[in-house]
Amino acid sequence: MRKTYIAGVLGAGRMGKIHIENILYNIPNLKLKAVADINRNDKLEKWANTIGVPKLISDASEIINDPEINMVVIASSTDTHTRFIQEVAKAKKDIFCEKPIDTDLKRIKETLEIVKEEGVKLMIGFNRRFDKNFKRVREMVSSGQVGIPQIVKVTARDPAPPSIEYIRSSGGMLFDMTIHDWDMARFQVGSEIEEVYAKGAVLVDPEIGKAGDIDTTVLILKFKNGALGMIDNSRQAVYGYDQRVEVFGSKGCAIADNEPLNTVRLYTSEKIKEDNIPYFFLQRYMDSYAAELRYFIECLQENKEPSPNGEDGFQNVVIAIAAQKSYEENRPVKISEIVI
Amino acid sequence: MRKTYIAGVLGAGRMGKIHIENILYNIPNLKLKAVADINRNDKLEKWANTIGVPKLISDASEIINDPEINMVVIASSTDTHTRFIQEVAKAKKDIFCEKPIDTDLKRIKETLEIVKEEGVKLMIGFNRRFDKNFKRVREMVSSGQVGIPQIVKVTARDPAPPSIEYIRSSGGMLFDMTIHDWDMARFQVGSEIEEVYAKGAVLVDPEIGKAGDIDTTVLILKFKNGALGMIDNSRQAVYGYDQRVEVFGSKGCAIADNEPLNTVRLYTSEKIKEDNIPYFFLQRYMDSYAAELRYFIECLQENKEPSPNGEDGFQNVVIAIAAQKSYEENRPVKISEIVI
Amino acid sequence: MRKTYIAGVLGAGRMGKIHIENILYNIPNLKLKAVADINRNDKLEKWANTIGVPKLISDASEIINDPEINMVVIASSTDTHTRFIQEVAKAKKDIFCEKPIDTDLKRIKETLEIVKEEGVKLMIGFNRRFDKNFKRVREMVSSGQVGIPQIVKVTARDPAPPSIEYIRSSGGMLFDMTIHDWDMARFQVGSEIEEVYAKGAVLVDPEIGKAGDIDTTVLILKFKNGALGMIDNSRQAVYGYDQRVEVFGSKGCAIADNEPLNTVRLYTSEKIKEDNIPYFFLQRYMDSYAAELRYFIECLQENKEPSPNGEDGFQNVVIAIAAQKSYEENRPVKISEIVI
Amino acid sequence: MRKTYIAGVLGAGRMGKIHIENILYNIPNLKLKAVADINRNDKLEKWANTIGVPKLISDASEIINDPEINMVVIASSTDTHTRFIQEVAKAKKDIFCEKPIDTDLKRIKETLEIVKEEGVKLMIGFNRRFDKNFKRVREMVSSGQVGIPQIVKVTARDPAPPSIEYIRSSGGMLFDMTIHDWDMARFQVGSEIEEVYAKGAVLVDPEIGKAGDIDTTVLILKFKNGALGMIDNSRQAVYGYDQRVEVFGSKGCAIADNEPLNTVRLYTSEKIKEDNIPYFFLQRYMDSYAAELRYFIECLQENKEPSPNGEDGFQNVVIAIAAQKSYEENRPVKISEIVI
Repeated sequence: MRKTYIAGVLGAGRMGKIHIENILYNIPNLKLKAVADINRNDKLEKWANTIGVPKLISDASEIINDPEINMVVIASSTDTHTRFIQEVAKAKKDIFCEKPIDTDLKRIKETLEIVKEEGVKLMIGFNRRFDKNFKRVREMVSSGQVGIPQIVKVTARDPAPPSIEYIRSSGGMLFDMTIHDWDMARFQVGSEIEEVYAKGAVLVDPEIGKAGDIDTTVLILKFKNGALGMIDNSRQAVYGYDQRVEVFGSKGCAIADNEPLNTVRLYTSEKIKEDNIPYFFLQRYMDSYAAELRYFIECLQENKEPSPNGEDGFQNVVIAIAAQKSYEENRPVKISEIVI
Repeated sequence: MRKTYIAGVLGAGRMGKIHIENILYNIPNLKLKAVADINRNDKLEKWANTIGVPKLISDASEIINDPEINMVVIASSTDTHTRFIQEVAKAKKDIFCEKPIDTDLKRIKETLEIVKEEGVKLMIGFNRRFDKNFKRVREMVSSGQVGIPQIVKVTARDPAPPSIEYIRSSGGMLFDMTIHDWDMARFQVGSEIEEVYAKGAVLVDPEIGKAGDIDTTVLILKFKNGALGMIDNSRQAVYGYDQRVEVFGSKGCAIADNEPLNTVRLYTSEKIKEDNIPYFFLQRYMDSYAAELRYFIECLQENKEPSPNGEDGFQNVVIAIAAQKSYEENRPVKISEIVI
Repeated sequence: MRKTYIAGVLGAGRMGKIHIENILYNIPNLKLKAVADINRNDKLEKWANTIGVPKLISDASEIINDPEINMVVIASSTDTHTRFIQEVAKAKKDIFCEKPIDTDLKRIKETLEIVKEEGVKLMIGFNRRFDKNFKRVREMVSSGQVGIPQIVKVTARDPAPPSIEYIRSSGGMLFDMTIHDWDMARFQVGSEIEEVYAKGAVLVDPEIGKAGDIDTTVLILKFKNGALGMIDNSRQAVYGYDQRVEVFGSKGCAIADNEPLNTVRLYTSEKIKEDNIPYFFLQRYMDSYAAELRYFIECLQENKEPSPNGEDGFQNVVIAIAAQKSYEENRPVKISEIVI
Repeated sequence: MRKTYIAGVLGAGRMGKIHIENILYNIPNLKLKAVADINRNDKLEKWANTIGVPKLISDASEIINDPEINMVVIASSTDTHTRFIQEVAKAKKDIFCEKPIDTDLKRIKETLEIVKEEGVKLMIGFNRRFDKNFKRVREMVSSGQVGIPQIVKVTARDPAPPSIEYIRSSGGMLFDMTIHDWDMARFQVGSEIEEVYAKGAVLVDPEIGKAGDIDTTVLILKFKNGALGMIDNSRQAVYGYDQRVEVFGSKGCAIADNEPLNTVRLYTSEKIKEDNIPYFFLQRYMDSYAAELRYFIECLQENKEPSPNGEDGFQNVVIAIAAQKSYEENRPVKISEIVI
């Protein structure tokens, strides 16, 4: 019989709440014991109560030191990730950590070494790999139906830009948004990126430019296995959350189009009309959050190395640094140029 | 603040289990107190335990008489429906009952009168009305975007026929399968059926014919408001569970195509390929079961008459009787010919 | 080397003009020698001149008696068809005749016998069989990919009703419009119709009803091989010329959707929009008129019996008579009830 | 009344033949007088005879000097283009010339000046602008429905690589194949390209690499108006001729998908299948060749400057030189770096 895991969650912000609800309702063999949030307040208490959280505390160490808890979800703010990973790893608990691990390569490296030494499992929440459509594309690629991948294309456009405050603290569009897309490209191609060229522009809102960021970007990737990649991003697609993936190879091409809200087409005297695509990531990717956690529990039960793991988290940040350098210097940058 | 309802469930077979899981996990403001199943056994106990059913009993009357329970889901065998509806109504509890209410028109009529006298609400589980695609078509029709409905078309094909035993006890294809489709047609058009012509054939399996039933049927409906309808059914579509609806009117046409499993298209040297449509009703309509129950709770909270209600359940059986007569006598039959 | 045929055309109305242009420009091995039209006038002369018609005359017999002409296209008014077919057949020329041959079964029968005696070939212009989409469906059916056909569905809706004058002289909707659809159904299923049930209504324009006709109709067909069929027609689909075919069988289902005007989808903040489908038959079926004539020349060159032939033309009229009877008497009518 | 133009055609190779057939059959107000081909031989004579070419000669000057001919189509080999354009311009005839004008910028410049001096019209055959789908996208962009263009994407993949001999004399993939795509990008965005970055690879056939060329390429474009562009090309898409365009802007996104061969979907027990897309450019773009010529005649009749004109032809070659430099030096290249 399958082992049941007892989970603690660090952080009950937007992402933490999603994981908490999934643990409570959607993941077999995973029980929630406690949630720790440093900003515990009345509103959060009430939410926790309604949803059925057994225990809400403010001190993370209570969870880290609880001998019954054997799996921890880290969904606290990014600057706390490496510290919590290290502490949880030392407490010999397996870890599911939200992306990104950190923005400092050295700190990530040290943390991953501790994880390795302690022999616990670490999965990073690049949830889009678990979207049913993109996963199906990957199955077609890995089963050979597409042949040798030659060109991978990722389109990702948000429905509306975040606040200027958010943008200021986001680390920049390439770290905050595009990081998902080279993770997707790496996932689909099954090879590492060797070189990146990023071109950016401010086309949506001049305020974003004044804040030192871009809002539109297109990238070219070169993979170690020879494949080429293309990414295009915008902070504002007025028609919704545009998320598409295409892998072109020697035997064919797999294209995942946007997920429709419904299948209804309305034929009128003027046009044929369809409802828009999902508005944002909660609508589009909700199922993927449960799927990634279910998969992680499976990895624990079968003692498999999870994927995406810490190394993926590390690579994605390295590429972000290279892409940022490429954008700033307007030239292709080799990943090997980025040294810790 | 919204009132929370306390539910009891009668019957924990296939449909009962779906409702129980939804009450436990997916319906706000609805708490499960107890489940009664006459076939309570070890396997069921274990299932109930795992899923988190608070109390599993074998005697329905315990639920019916529990003063705390104010809403009962009836998912027991069809022959017990009218008895349970009557008892629950007399206990002044609101009722969600699986389709069909019964096959005897007189019994249904009597039961509905008791429901009316007792002043409780009764909803019948024609869940397809809550499928997001078909619901969207109805919104387009009722908001006038399609104009006056002139032709409604419903296609419903199962992936594989049920067992001959099932067919023998099913009441016949028109009662068992097509009943959903004229409910859908009535729902979409917003008018009652006046006349039906049903043509049937045995094209899938001669054994079905030997059991006295048909496995393929096409029907023409005439509505009181003048609209025409068409239904086609098959017990076996080898490519999956084919479920489509179309409403054509004076201002346009709304077409709900099958729900795809994913959005991926694979271009190969031979063909462009897509994964098949959902295999059967659990895959296709799972969300609709939660949606119908959520809607019913909303009706209770806002004191709205639910739809489909007992009258819909009655009408659908009247039409089944007329359709059966039409098939047997190979002539269009007026609904008014069917008298209790 | 392939024989070149020399064509004469009788009638230069709407359909005649289409055939004349095709012979001039689109059919290899077919040369136009002369066109006869009883209503020869200045406007027609000018058109003929511009388009490059070698000879325009008013007397059909000049063409019928021209020894160089070995193939005649009959596109004159319906009431002249049988007379011209007989005369051309006796002159030992092969014949392509527009639909319908006639509305009188006895006259058709006699004419077909003369054609047979004279040993010439006769093809009837049911052009939709040559539409690339419907032809592709038929290929899938005849190659066995759909298995044994069980349900065939034809949807045909015009963009707007013709004038009341046209309707008055059209022979009625079933003769004028639906005749194409059972021809399509027969073509797809590859079996003859045994019984038809037609339900009609006046939902588009009461004036059509006053003129003694219907504007909306749905039909159920039963084929000799056991298959069932469904047709739905409307005189007015505000979104364009809706033309779809579906064949469902034991191994699958082939669905031909409407031909799009282009492949562009426009994603906006409100909706996803596509341009409408083709507006009417000239836009949708233009290629099929050249294809049917090319095919006929191929039949002549390879001495193959063309399809659809005179017998198809006859059958389609028999079914029209049965369908009309069915509509009038509101009951299914066996084709065998129709006797000459 | 509209003036009729009398055309001469220089060159009866693959492209010349397409134009000749279109002039003969598909372009109102344009008459063919003569065709000159330096390789006039029996086979060509026979073809010309069958198709109805009035006069086939080997000496171009006969056409250039024929006073009745007022419009010349140049479809001879690329190295003769500038010479013929100059001669025809001096003979005061309007010119439709196949792409590319030449590969030498200086020679193009001189030629365009002569065209200007002589006051004749010159159109260059970038036919894809006349594809109904891509034209429709442009209409949406220019009418403002897409808003301000921000990202333009062009996908163009051939079904199979040409012979190594062809590749050797082609000028390279960027000159031979990608040149169409930045013309398309310029057409859609309505602004000039400022900078290009081209990444290439040999992923299809190592022989292509040995011949000094690439077979796979991805590019990033920057436009003067700030928009960004992406192009991806492959010499081999096993599923057919993949031709797509997308324009994303401040108000929406217009996407032109591949043109389907037909609309039929076959649902089987394994997959849903569609026939492949068109195999190559003749199948896909045939209509666009007639459309571009029809449009040119319209320009002549209305005395409008045609588009794409000589300047477009010039720009497209400038960009090719910049793209080649970018690929060779692996860096973004400004168009302004390319000087004559």
